[in-house]
Amino acid sequence: MTRFALTLEFDGTPFFGLQRQADGPSVQQAVEEAAFRVTGEEVRLHSAGRTDTGVHALAMRSHLDIGKDIDPFRLMEALNAHLRPDPIAVTACEVVPDDWHARFSCIGRAYVYRIANRRAPLTLDRDRAWQLGTPLDHEAMHRAAQSLVGLHDFTTFRSAHCQADSPIKTLDRLDVERDGEEVRIHAEARSFLHHQVRSMVGCLALVGMGRWREEQVAEALEARDRQALGLNAPSCGLYFVRAVYPSNS
Amino acid sequence: MTRFALTLEFDGTPFFGLQRQADGPSVQQAVEEAAFRVTGEEVRLHSAGRTDTGVHALAMRSHLDIGKDIDPFRLMEALNAHLRPDPIAVTACEVVPDDWHARFSCIGRAYVYRIANRRAPLTLDRDRAWQLGTPLDHEAMHRAAQSLVGLHDFTTFRSAHCQADSPIKTLDRLDVERDGEEVRIHAEARSFLHHQVRSMVGCLALVGMGRWREEQVAEALEARDRQALGLNAPSCGLYFVRAVYPSNS
Repeated sequence: MTRFALTLEFDGTPFFGLQRQADGPSVQQAVEEAAFRVTGEEVRLHSAGRTDTGVHALAMRSHLDIGKDIDPFRLMEALNAHLRPDPIAVTACEVVPDDWHARFSCIGRAYVYRIANRRAPLTLDRDRAWQLGTPLDHEAMHRAAQSLVGLHDFTTFRSAHCQADSPIKTLDRLDVERDGEEVRIHAEARSFLHHQVRSMVGCLALVGMGRWREEQVAEALEARDRQALGLNAPSCGLYFVRAVYPSNS
Repeated sequence: MTRFALTLEFDGTPFFGLQRQADGPSVQQAVEEAAFRVTGEEVRLHSAGRTDTGVHALAMRSHLDIGKDIDPFRLMEALNAHLRPDPIAVTACEVVPDDWHARFSCIGRAYVYRIANRRAPLTLDRDRAWQLGTPLDHEAMHRAAQSLVGLHDFTTFRSAHCQADSPIKTLDRLDVERDGEEVRIHAEARSFLHHQVRSMVGCLALVGMGRWREEQVAEALEARDRQALGLNAPSCGLYFVRAVYPSNS
């Protein structure tokens, strides 16, 4: 068996998330079925993150084990051919050691959240950003975000369905920047709780709209109570952008 | 009657172009029907450009005349409400003098063409860029493009269906730049012939792939013969980005 690491890009709109689901299409199922058509083998895809319905990826990292003798370039090309017409692409493929694991070897994850801060409905960016008509004070959002950086109990920002053992996580980065009418939030951590980025973005948006004082974000964190959450941002604005491994593997 | 100038953004994928067509949906028809639902008036939309099937716009400029007493902000909001779910948005709306004409007053038009220069199929950018797997030499493309700038007979780069009186046009700018895996072509002129940008991009792509010598672009221009055209680039990569009016009106 040879272990192949894949870099996946996908439009999450038509999928019930990355992970295989009993009740609808998933990125995992699409890639596993493409791999079956290429190799005749029942493979299992493991990924750095478990994105929800509608969440996108620019560079998800995944792996699968294949017995058939095939080189990485041919595997990538064949997977892409069989993934059509699903909006999933393998943008890189390489052989990795058998003990490299896309999920368990991963020591860092990065997301970007896109807000289209404009009154007009989205056209080309429909399903690709959260449209918010109220002018956002992105500097206030950035200041408020800093209270979430560091080691905290993120219970407030965790979905009721979160399967993590502990709500305590270290958030390494939460930056808010504006580029014209687009406000982008950059989040980085070793790992995230279920819905954590969307929950944080939702509260920051309330600050940006002036509906929350900046200090309310820290107060919500300290409450350690899901009921203290202001707003969960929609999935369409969220992108998994990077998975980090030791020695950049 | 009050004349309103509109700035339109649209995803051209589901439309048979901007202009009204007998056989399929158009941007013009969608906006005119939305205006009818807002005002009860049969209005006619005039636009700076006449984009083809699948061509997008970030900022098309158009106008329509309305008898009903309505302020520009309310008109914009109402049009956007009635345009749903079509991927068309009015991003600006203002009152203009009766002699201002979106098409005839326009003294400059700008397009951007996006090439995704990568082997992997497109996902989030599907229908929004031309995917070309062969590595493109964008510097050679830029050099070759300069032979098209200036006053020329563009017969080679003109569709058989072009309705312009003359094939002689002045091309003000044709720049090729690379941003990572994306190659962008910027084209500016007072006006363009039908298919002119896509025809120029197609020939530049041949240069970028090494299938044409740089000089062949100038030779194709000098041939003044549609048969000398190398390739017409697909519509999905083309964006109308700017219309210019005297004194920036």
